[in-house]
Amino acid sequence: MAHEVHNGAENGGAKAVSFSAFKPQLFVQAPKAADAVQFYKAAFGAEEVSRTMHPKRKAEQDQPLVLSAELKLCSSIFSVSDISDESSSLGAGFAFCLETDDVEAAIGKALAAGAVAEGEVTEGEGAVPVSKVKDPYGFVWMFCSSAKSCGDAEA
Amino acid sequence: MAHEVHNGAENGGAKAVSFSAFKPQLFVQAPKAADAVQFYKAAFGAEEVSRTMHPKRKAEQDQPLVLSAELKLCSSIFSVSDISDESSSLGAGFAFCLETDDVEAAIGKALAAGAVAEGEVTEGEGAVPVSKVKDPYGFVWMFCSSAKSCGDAEA
Repeated sequence: MAHEVHNGAENGGAKAVSFSAFKPQLFVQAPKAADAVQFYKAAFGAEEVSRTMHPKRKAEQDQPLVLSAELKLCSSIFSVSDISDESSSLGAGFAFCLETDDVEAAIGKALAAGAVAEGEVTEGEGAVPVSKVKDPYGFVWMFCSSAKSCGDAEA
Repeated sequence: MAHEVHNGAENGGAKAVSFSAFKPQLFVQAPKAADAVQFYKAAFGAEEVSRTMHPKRKAEQDQPLVLSAELKLCSSIFSVSDISDESSSLGAGFAFCLETDDVEAAIGKALAAGAVAEGEVTEGEGAVPVSKVKDPYGFVWMFCSSAKSCGDAEA
């Protein structure tokens, strides 16, 4: 997996930040993520790499929700997640996930460049730090720890 | 570059479709694409791979628009394009571009799986066939000929 390493000196002394993965993440209205995965397989021949279910159901009769299903298409990975009304702060239904060993530095660099924080660093699946920013053009970027985030099966 | 080859027999006799590239494409309000490219370089260390300018200006005083700037981030490619009010049918400002040798078959397969056509096959840059569908979850997928489409510098 390629690493983009940036020299601090070249960036006016800013802390070097490297990313280990760049993954588009699609959010669909719960509980349609499982159907969406099926659609992407049928329509585009995407391969399912991994699927992580949400640990909590709202009620016994509810379908378990997909926290993140990773799909491979042309050697790229994208993920599909169920999103419920309560958690739909992402609005557009779409974000880019960037995996990095230093989430804090990555957020700092993005904010310095003009992005706006979208909520504080929160605890995601398995207490992995996840945070997001909105860029000046309206796109949302999520930063995840490289260790075990965004459902990365290759980590 | 990886190829996803699907056997017709496994897909109920559907024509095999392979994709040579999968690229997120961001559309920003013209003429901000050049600024957006600069932002993605500064914020995430993206590398600019290529830039294709729009061949026509509306007026002499207008800035030339970016038809497609390709950026590399973690070995993935995404592109940024200026979009003007007249051409903003994409709405969400985001699409996935899939490159294939057989746009027609790819569209047919997507429609058969439940996608909805978004306009007819139109002539893009250099008369490259480009077409798009919306999937049942609201995401737009564009199909481009592998030859010289979506500003692919590696083609």
